[in-house]
Amino acid sequence: MPRIRILAVGLGPIGLAAVRLVLGRRTLELAGAVDVDRDKRGKDLAELLGRPTPTGILVADDAEAVYARLAPDAVLLCTSSFLPAVREQVLLAVRHGADVVSSCEEMLLPDFQHPELAAELDRAARQGGATVVGTGVNPGFVLDFMPVVASAVCSEVRRVRARRVVDASTRRLPLQKKVGAGMAEAEFRSLVAAGRLGHVGLRESVALVGRAFGFELDEVSQTVEPVLATEERRTPHLAVPAGRVAGIRNVGVGRRGGEALVELELEMYVGAPDPGDEILLEGDPDVRVRFAGGVPGDEATAAILVNTVPRAVEAAPGLRTVLDLAPARLVR
Amino acid sequence: MPRIRILAVGLGPIGLAAVRLVLGRRTLELAGAVDVDRDKRGKDLAELLGRPTPTGILVADDAEAVYARLAPDAVLLCTSSFLPAVREQVLLAVRHGADVVSSCEEMLLPDFQHPELAAELDRAARQGGATVVGTGVNPGFVLDFMPVVASAVCSEVRRVRARRVVDASTRRLPLQKKVGAGMAEAEFRSLVAAGRLGHVGLRESVALVGRAFGFELDEVSQTVEPVLATEERRTPHLAVPAGRVAGIRNVGVGRRGGEALVELELEMYVGAPDPGDEILLEGDPDVRVRFAGGVPGDEATAAILVNTVPRAVEAAPGLRTVLDLAPARLVR
Repeated sequence: MPRIRILAVGLGPIGLAAVRLVLGRRTLELAGAVDVDRDKRGKDLAELLGRPTPTGILVADDAEAVYARLAPDAVLLCTSSFLPAVREQVLLAVRHGADVVSSCEEMLLPDFQHPELAAELDRAARQGGATVVGTGVNPGFVLDFMPVVASAVCSEVRRVRARRVVDASTRRLPLQKKVGAGMAEAEFRSLVAAGRLGHVGLRESVALVGRAFGFELDEVSQTVEPVLATEERRTPHLAVPAGRVAGIRNVGVGRRGGEALVELELEMYVGAPDPGDEILLEGDPDVRVRFAGGVPGDEATAAILVNTVPRAVEAAPGLRTVLDLAPARLVR
Repeated sequence: MPRIRILAVGLGPIGLAAVRLVLGRRTLELAGAVDVDRDKRGKDLAELLGRPTPTGILVADDAEAVYARLAPDAVLLCTSSFLPAVREQVLLAVRHGADVVSSCEEMLLPDFQHPELAAELDRAARQGGATVVGTGVNPGFVLDFMPVVASAVCSEVRRVRARRVVDASTRRLPLQKKVGAGMAEAEFRSLVAAGRLGHVGLRESVALVGRAFGFELDEVSQTVEPVLATEERRTPHLAVPAGRVAGIRNVGVGRRGGEALVELELEMYVGAPDPGDEILLEGDPDVRVRFAGGVPGDEATAAILVNTVPRAVEAAPGLRTVLDLAPARLVR
């Protein structure tokens, strides 16, 4: 089998973690890397990865030229959480026939918030003979893909509940800040009111689960609440005094006729006890799945992105969801 | 969407449970049913299902004529655990362009024990434009599909262990007999020596997991041991005196260079405490998955067969494994 030639677009923490994995796979080849950041442009990837030996791959910023020159098979796209922000990048990739696997949270279910844009991307992907899919650990795996996969053994599912608890102490500083750790409650609430706090993609997860089970949800909503520290908590990166925000409790709910059929809960806070991921399908039979200790974040997200690439390459062209592809699995 | 027209071939307990489910799905249509059993031939399915109202579907035994008359889209094939025994049935189906979803345990990984037959079936399936796949709860889900799916979030997997514990008290009599419940130990061991006891498909599960992870196993073996009752145990169907066989402990192991990289354990015995399914991937990161209470048997097997049908219909033609298809999920 020829190796799959991959272009990495977006070299933030997730993109770089994915690059690191690609460089270690014998069935994958890193063809190039693109980032618009002036501080990264022109540097050898080794410098960004903190490695002593040059990779020979310099960070480019002119994506159009890179596609023309490298003709990659697939793109790992890790630039934005929002679909409109990745529109041009996706169109460029599929115009060059490259399959796209993206960490863009809204791409989990592109037509949920952006039906017209999703239709445009789907048309372009089919024209280009390319598959486009969004994935990750959350969204993309624990609260959406796994509940649906667990239903394989069910003849009925009436209600879905899943809960992910993450101890933010164990995560990088940007994640700790993203969940509001250390903030005053009032600041947290004003950021929520401004739509600037809360996990992007949770409503997409609710909608994907609802659609997979034919629930015909008429309402998909979410709440974002602070979890307050009852005593001082410290992480390697920051301290949270008692009474300040330790993190976030984000609940996504899908209803039909007022009844909550899908409830997905995400708790990420400093000092969360008993972290783990749990799924309950109420149906025939009931199915309970638990990931003891939980599925970790950034590294696992990079892994699932990379592990999805061969499945996207095999899949029929178009804008897809993770439920349409053969399941991602370890790639060597 | 037009309904998928299904032919049920084989009307044993699993086949009938699948038929029952198909009759209740709005996206599926039961087109016909075939069984070679003279006691079933010509009867309305309702009689076999214990239902008062005729279905209008009479059990046929001339499969060739049934295909010609009904031209089904897909076949639920529940006739045998062994690939050679279903060869003719599969060839007939794919010659008529019907996709095949089968409970045949050896079909989980057809080329493991029958490479030439698998190649023949694959060629015939491609010629007929049909997909052929074997699935079930075990093999097909808990000890093979799920460990592989859980690896989506891993960048390395070094070793796989999974364990399924079933309390045989809760299962039908044939299952209790199949695990040796009530036998003397000597009888159990002589049946094992004759190859007549042990879970069909466990080595296929080991081999599928090994192949998915690129382990290049050089040995796939299994052991079958009795679990003896330490005190008398009763089920609705039988009694197991103390000292007699309560059931089976079946361990499948895949090794490379003498090292056990895959260990799948199946314990099915009357009175097994704490039934459940557990998976441990030793890798980066470690992943632990537990199905609390376990995934039940026959009903869940019928469900996964039916739930796989639309995924097989969508898939590219050929002899496939469950890892090649989009994941089965609840079908309505």
